Amino acid sequence: MSTSSKTFTVPLDEENWILTPVEAGLDGTWLGSIQMRTLHGGRQEGVKVIDVDNGVTTFSVVPTRGMSVHSVHCGDVTLGWESPVTDIVHPAYINLDSRGGLGWLDGFNEWMVRCGTEFAGHPGDDNGHMLNLHGKAGNIPASAVEVVIDNDAPHRIRLRGLVEEKTFKFVNYELLTEVSTTPGEAGLHFSDVLRNLGAYETEYQIIYHTNFGAPLLGENATFLAPFKTVTPFDDYAAKDIGSWTRYLGPTREYGEQVYCVEPYADANNQTLVMLRNADGDRGAAMRFDTTTLPYFTLWKNTDTLEEGYVTGLEPATGFPYNRSIERRFNRVPRIGSGETRSFSMSVSVLSDSAAIKATEAEISALQADRPSQINSVSATPPSD
Amino acid sequence: MSTSSKTFTVPLDEENWILTPVEAGLDGTWLGSIQMRTLHGGRQEGVKVIDVDNGVTTFSVVPTRGMSVHSVHCGDVTLGWESPVTDIVHPAYINLDSRGGLGWLDGFNEWMVRCGTEFAGHPGDDNGHMLNLHGKAGNIPASAVEVVIDNDAPHRIRLRGLVEEKTFKFVNYELLTEVSTTPGEAGLHFSDVLRNLGAYETEYQIIYHTNFGAPLLGENATFLAPFKTVTPFDDYAAKDIGSWTRYLGPTREYGEQVYCVEPYADANNQTLVMLRNADGDRGAAMRFDTTTLPYFTLWKNTDTLEEGYVTGLEPATGFPYNRSIERRFNRVPRIGSGETRSFSMSVSVLSDSAAIKATEAEISALQADRPSQINSVSATPPSD
Amino acid sequence: MSTSSKTFTVPLDEENWILTPVEAGLDGTWLGSIQMRTLHGGRQEGVKVIDVDNGVTTFSVVPTRGMSVHSVHCGDVTLGWESPVTDIVHPAYINLDSRGGLGWLDGFNEWMVRCGTEFAGHPGDDNGHMLNLHGKAGNIPASAVEVVIDNDAPHRIRLRGLVEEKTFKFVNYELLTEVSTTPGEAGLHFSDVLRNLGAYETEYQIIYHTNFGAPLLGENATFLAPFKTVTPFDDYAAKDIGSWTRYLGPTREYGEQVYCVEPYADANNQTLVMLRNADGDRGAAMRFDTTTLPYFTLWKNTDTLEEGYVTGLEPATGFPYNRSIERRFNRVPRIGSGETRSFSMSVSVLSDSAAIKATEAEISALQADRPSQINSVSATPPSD
Repeated sequence: MSTSSKTFTVPLDEENWILTPVEAGLDGTWLGSIQMRTLHGGRQEGVKVIDVDNGVTTFSVVPTRGMSVHSVHCGDVTLGWESPVTDIVHPAYINLDSRGGLGWLDGFNEWMVRCGTEFAGHPGDDNGHMLNLHGKAGNIPASAVEVVIDNDAPHRIRLRGLVEEKTFKFVNYELLTEVSTTPGEAGLHFSDVLRNLGAYETEYQIIYHTNFGAPLLGENATFLAPFKTVTPFDDYAAKDIGSWTRYLGPTREYGEQVYCVEPYADANNQTLVMLRNADGDRGAAMRFDTTTLPYFTLWKNTDTLEEGYVTGLEPATGFPYNRSIERRFNRVPRIGSGETRSFSMSVSVLSDSAAIKATEAEISALQADRPSQINSVSATPPSD
Repeated sequence: MSTSSKTFTVPLDEENWILTPVEAGLDGTWLGSIQMRTLHGGRQEGVKVIDVDNGVTTFSVVPTRGMSVHSVHCGDVTLGWESPVTDIVHPAYINLDSRGGLGWLDGFNEWMVRCGTEFAGHPGDDNGHMLNLHGKAGNIPASAVEVVIDNDAPHRIRLRGLVEEKTFKFVNYELLTEVSTTPGEAGLHFSDVLRNLGAYETEYQIIYHTNFGAPLLGENATFLAPFKTVTPFDDYAAKDIGSWTRYLGPTREYGEQVYCVEPYADANNQTLVMLRNADGDRGAAMRFDTTTLPYFTLWKNTDTLEEGYVTGLEPATGFPYNRSIERRFNRVPRIGSGETRSFSMSVSVLSDSAAIKATEAEISALQADRPSQINSVSATPPSD
Repeated sequence: MSTSSKTFTVPLDEENWILTPVEAGLDGTWLGSIQMRTLHGGRQEGVKVIDVDNGVTTFSVVPTRGMSVHSVHCGDVTLGWESPVTDIVHPAYINLDSRGGLGWLDGFNEWMVRCGTEFAGHPGDDNGHMLNLHGKAGNIPASAVEVVIDNDAPHRIRLRGLVEEKTFKFVNYELLTEVSTTPGEAGLHFSDVLRNLGAYETEYQIIYHTNFGAPLLGENATFLAPFKTVTPFDDYAAKDIGSWTRYLGPTREYGEQVYCVEPYADANNQTLVMLRNADGDRGAAMRFDTTTLPYFTLWKNTDTLEEGYVTGLEPATGFPYNRSIERRFNRVPRIGSGETRSFSMSVSVLSDSAAIKATEAEISALQADRPSQINSVSATPPSD
């Protein structure tokens, strides 16, 4: 299939910019727009934000922060959360190595931020190399930002940006990111390609760190997935393994509990997980390709509202342990010189109980009669 | 008392801006202006500076550097100093963690910089957390910068800016800074409010680090304060405890001597200290509220002119030891969820010997017949 | 000799700027221009580049990165290389302390970058101070950028910029950089002056790190120099000391081999080295003053093209070991209060075999009958 399309360069050197349906040739078909704006003041000085409105769903992409998606709005559903970090922080103000490698937390407030791609997990030493939490990709400004719109129906609207992670003698990666949607769609789709421009085969890691607060997250909200195994990340998570799919309301001193999931997929390596609200009438369905994203982490951080009441649904190449641990468990993939890896993930907003039920049925069908193993202790060696 | 006022937003997205008395409705009353400008070149590229002129006193506030005050001019008196760091350095060029946590020194040249507010003292490990010298507040760009002018006499002119110190899982502080002056006043006033937006009670620290060179500082310049105790910071300061209130001229290999002071205050917790020049005809009087700023540090750094001949007068929540030491001596205050702490400090320029003598008398009255204890050895455990 | 000249300030606060021969008063004499442009997107957002065209040679200077020269073009010869780092990276995105002090590699892609000036060599501890690779100068934005053009023939065109390396209590250096050329010249000249504004005598280091890929570098390309000694940097370099002047083509797993050279100079302390292509018909001749640049390092990094096939020709105050090692071997010079040090280096593009042969003859004449000692083992103590 060859699809013709129109390409519009997003002018990152300008203060504001707008692409209308008329300019895109979709007048009457598309009831929205794509707009770029520039933030000023505080730690967000100079940050570029691109607001995409497909007529039903709106979302904000931040090229200055690695093409992260700050939040999504669709009807009365918001995908995103209320982080204590309220600014969209410019990477120039973030030192990823601070607080023993936890500097990433100075800017963490997105609905979806990519962790990676040289490394993606917990900070600490890996064989003489000090890794920072969740890698660098989320704090690298994108270049070559452009909008590509298919001429043919359903006129998919693609927002692309290039995230270069390049250090002489260490890493030579380009991550061509794409987030897309079609006019009127209640959701969006990620389709990223990682390319190793270096001469040697090297390790990589990526986590799609999506984060949800209200209105989907709340007391008795539920997580659903077809899964082969679930394992608590640590002893604290093990304590509550019995209720790992169910959420508490905002809870003082809860901190975080993390669960490591091996999802089941269909014959085409497609899987589906869901976050469902307590009433069972709103939710988010996340579909991803387990070929390159075989693991999934559920991060339950249902502490108080003030501290950032949030849960993370995180398809990934592995689990968020330090890379030294991930390597020991053979969860660090490699990419050869000149090779590419493609990552695919879609998120749909579910706005009534019928949609929730249909998704539940689909998840059940994926599970089918395959067994689920619930491990009650962490698999990580005590020494870590 | 309800005071009506006019508010003017400072447009941080513009290159230049001016507020005149006519625009402020104070024509004839106010013979000055407030102007914003943008610096270019070197490490000061993009820095915003706001010059306030009340008709008698002018001072420059740097929103890009946490609303620090770079210098004050009043008649022939300058409050400020000649630092080896001549640029007003943009925080994007400063790595606070460099040189073992001394990166703050890359940008240090202000008359008044706030140290804090998560931590404020010397760098080093505190219970597994590596703290940088003097914290982050002085290198966080302010947002919501505005000028508020009282409609009623004396038409106080207030410059406000919000300094957000927020890291997921660590700190959630907003410091609403205000520096104000009235038309024709020989001085200015700080009135800051710290708010803990987090869910938990946490520690905080703040130091108002004011720094003076010529013309007030010079050989035989003198520091005066009503005090209960003074204690040398270390053995080197102990050596010269006998002359701790008197200054040397620029002195090779002097380095710095630091003295920790517990000031006396009046029944309303107001105290007053003074830096007086050698001739006794020029000075700066500093008044502060010991309710929230109960400690005071005198930093004598009377090394050569080239190295930055300077003294620091520093009202604070504690002394500038590492937080781990301050905690041991119960000098680290805490702030509950949703609580605020207010900090108040005024500085007046004294321009003749009568004003100096009146201030001396006021300091004597504050001391009254209360005893002053001069400790000859540092109170810090040798192991630190 | 007093040469009159015209000075043009380069407006760093503007997006673009051009200086034409007419404006410079050199119409008819100078067939080029000097242009400033601003880069956008990715990690090069906001970077200023100044393109100098003397009619025969063009080169690009980057004020935002310490007045580095990104590349030089003259006829079919390019001086420069293809680094994996393709952006001209803004220093705001570089943490020099990352990867154990190797953050400098995040931005390394210039033809000529100055390492220094507080320290210039390998990272690591020096007496309690953690040094980063190659110092800070290459990542400090220049101020006071200006073009100075001699009124008299040959109408030398000088581009100057001030690099301030200033930290309270640590360093107070100004490096006034100058790169110049004359209309029609096949080359350019560096003439830098370091000034110690501090009160005390302190150490300094500088390396002129020039880097060459194709077309000069290739299999059987050769390095020529008049030298007293050459010593391998480490055991890996020692292995191939026998072929230290000859280059391999791009070679998998080669990594880097480094050779430390003490050059001979003439009675005026001028020396000359050359990089010659395999065919012997293109080359670059580098002349420098050994009064202040007495040492020279040959960095052979002939790994694959993808990893950055490159060689470095590096006149310097010493060798690129950590300063702690350099000090032990008495290769760390000092500069007194108020003193200056001048550094002079010229590079000429050689475009035919006659020019190559003439340069070879000149190098031979410099060597004359003085002995060359080729050490087969590294002089560095095993413990380093």
